[in-house]
Amino acid sequence: MPIPATEPTRTGAPSQRTRVHRHPERADYSRATVDAILDEALICHVAWVADGEPRVIPTIHARVDDTLYLHGSAKNRTLSAIREGAEICICATIVDGIVLARSAFKSSMNYRSVIVFGRARLVDEPAELAIVARALTDHVAPGRSADARMPTDEEYRQTSILALALEECSAKVRTGPPKDDETDLELPVWAGVVPMSMVPGAPVADDEVPSGTQAPGYATGYRRPGANGG
Amino acid sequence: MPIPATEPTRTGAPSQRTRVHRHPERADYSRATVDAILDEALICHVAWVADGEPRVIPTIHARVDDTLYLHGSAKNRTLSAIREGAEICICATIVDGIVLARSAFKSSMNYRSVIVFGRARLVDEPAELAIVARALTDHVAPGRSADARMPTDEEYRQTSILALALEECSAKVRTGPPKDDETDLELPVWAGVVPMSMVPGAPVADDEVPSGTQAPGYATGYRRPGANGG
Repeated sequence: MPIPATEPTRTGAPSQRTRVHRHPERADYSRATVDAILDEALICHVAWVADGEPRVIPTIHARVDDTLYLHGSAKNRTLSAIREGAEICICATIVDGIVLARSAFKSSMNYRSVIVFGRARLVDEPAELAIVARALTDHVAPGRSADARMPTDEEYRQTSILALALEECSAKVRTGPPKDDETDLELPVWAGVVPMSMVPGAPVADDEVPSGTQAPGYATGYRRPGANGG
Repeated sequence: MPIPATEPTRTGAPSQRTRVHRHPERADYSRATVDAILDEALICHVAWVADGEPRVIPTIHARVDDTLYLHGSAKNRTLSAIREGAEICICATIVDGIVLARSAFKSSMNYRSVIVFGRARLVDEPAELAIVARALTDHVAPGRSADARMPTDEEYRQTSILALALEECSAKVRTGPPKDDETDLELPVWAGVVPMSMVPGAPVADDEVPSGTQAPGYATGYRRPGANGG
């Protein structure tokens, strides 16, 4: 008899569906790893089922302790479908490098990804909405919530915020050089890794900013939390 | 009566489910835009339905003319679920910038994303597999297929390649500065865009590469097709 998908497994995975089957050596079920990836990833992809069909869109997220929040518009068909209590699945992925093995077959990517499963809850308490508005603002640009005008009641009404408990989640991480077969090592082909990272450019002020106004440090020195700066 | 999801719409969208409802001004239904985003995006996210529940994982893709190919392992539960003819939904997203409006509510991201819907086909013809192996290799590192050892028959058996016709697809693109409300323009808050891009680092050779071996140009001068160079 198959183990129910939501039952914890002996591998340390919180459930069967979060267990990493392919390349289990890349699995990391620690919340510290999951949290670090969610915090560093600028966006995530959220999947749900609509009339039996899969749907996936990119969205902005923010983690506050044990809760993952997703941002959307109240007019967004997506989030209205999700708020009716449907199961959702979230994936946040950070690409760290291109792994060039001597064989195409062993070529790969260095990456860190997180999957979270659960049923979303619609956030409508004003106190929680205010916390989430700050968390989302600071997730995108750490420090920005001290400057940006926070939402009005009317703006909150036009926003859908979904909350998901970080209970059923797992991380998958690949690092390091290619792992070619022994027999391929003597091929006259360069092998290694091209590191990749999301890098900020110089901030571009909008036309209405008075000339000579200095861009804030979180814009001129933009940095993802935990990012190695490379 | 609702229009069937797969029927073309007057907006130019190839179907109801590919129509961009939220921020329709960001929609782009041209294949040229869809192709350019798919070609530049290093990875995509693929969603499907398993036992009524949503699933989403990151994967490597490559486009060849009107077909999108997805790479997986034959041992991968994901792709075996998909290959049984299930509907899939793919999303490829490129983040171009962080849009800091004066209000948190109008803050946004500059991005280009593509959604593709369809039923996947399992590729098993040797001639098509050989084309896809080169396309995937060159998608990840343009030029690499000339150097890397292409797969053996046994390696092809351990690989699952799914093909999806680029028929039902759409792009969504946001560019430019923040669009604050008129009443917020006089707030003493800097506003603008922090450009973001995926940037390659210096290639790191693996330990078995003979010292003094020069890394190839596609590694030292790594560049995504169409990328503006950061």
